[in-house]
Amino acid sequence: MAYITIPEEEQLPGIRGLMAFRPETARPLNALAEILLRDENNSLSRGDRETIATYVSSQNDCLFCQSVHGAAAQAYLEDDGTLINQIKQNYETAPVSEKLKTLLAIAGSVQKGGKNVTETQVEAAKNAGATDKEIHDTVLIAAAFSMFNRYVDGLGTWAPNDPQVYIPRGIRIAEEGYANYDPMKSIGK
Amino acid sequence: MAYITIPEEEQLPGIRGLMAFRPETARPLNALAEILLRDENNSLSRGDRETIATYVSSQNDCLFCQSVHGAAAQAYLEDDGTLINQIKQNYETAPVSEKLKTLLAIAGSVQKGGKNVTETQVEAAKNAGATDKEIHDTVLIAAAFSMFNRYVDGLGTWAPNDPQVYIPRGIRIAEEGYANYDPMKSIGK
Repeated sequence: MAYITIPEEEQLPGIRGLMAFRPETARPLNALAEILLRDENNSLSRGDRETIATYVSSQNDCLFCQSVHGAAAQAYLEDDGTLINQIKQNYETAPVSEKLKTLLAIAGSVQKGGKNVTETQVEAAKNAGATDKEIHDTVLIAAAFSMFNRYVDGLGTWAPNDPQVYIPRGIRIAEEGYANYDPMKSIGK
Repeated sequence: MAYITIPEEEQLPGIRGLMAFRPETARPLNALAEILLRDENNSLSRGDRETIATYVSSQNDCLFCQSVHGAAAQAYLEDDGTLINQIKQNYETAPVSEKLKTLLAIAGSVQKGGKNVTETQVEAAKNAGATDKEIHDTVLIAAAFSMFNRYVDGLGTWAPNDPQVYIPRGIRIAEEGYANYDPMKSIGK
């Protein structure tokens, strides 16, 4: 049970119940997720962006966020969970690009606190081909999930344990995105 | 110098330069700040909401955010800086309501990580008269500033040291809000 009274709580885990409780704040939160994670005008793939979101959520031990965004990453990357789990455990040895590794290093520092990002990390990302916009978006995705994770866990929401439960939601995110998400209409889907 | 190339950087410190660099993400970020910190349909005063934002930014040692939002809190609370500094140093002994103290305790836990919020803290806030919406908004304000602080410091932006520089900006926020903020038009203001 969450710390506040949430409508249809048993059917709306994690941020979904909070968005039903407070649709006024849900709107800019979903608009932010849409532009950061899904906008097509971006040289970082949707899969890479969801991977960064998943990694930060995993570092923050947020079960709901790492499961939902892990499922979205799986949908984009056509992964059965093997790759995303490998990235969560140790991205350095995972079969991903050198550029993504340098961006995950920056994201990991942001997760600990903004001042943890170093010039050396940024230099490494630039040397691996990352643009200023890609570095900007990596920092903002990591910062945004430092928010989403705290929002979801700070209000004591529940989340399903079974990773398979999140798979259809990940596919829906890949297909429909965040911008028009309505928690009450999503019940049972 | 920030880690990325920012337009008019010397005139746009902190998040202002980042919003000029990436207006697409600035829009939902400002919409979120407006609804959380300034919307009139809220039983938490604008001064109390900016105080929570300032306290979290201070705990994260983010000079730009604590200075700007501290100045906005000062404008609403008609404070010369004495009260807001006292709250930053030790809100327990500051002359603020018991309810605000319990909400600042929750915000302080969110700053450390969502799972740090305890049932006892939430119970104390409810006993001091806090509503579910007020507890929700406190958690989301604290979570949002865990994002804003990381965004501003994670990209290595600069910020003026002199607290007086921020006073006019705080007054402008109190008068005009966040929703229509345009960083390029704000230069020199």
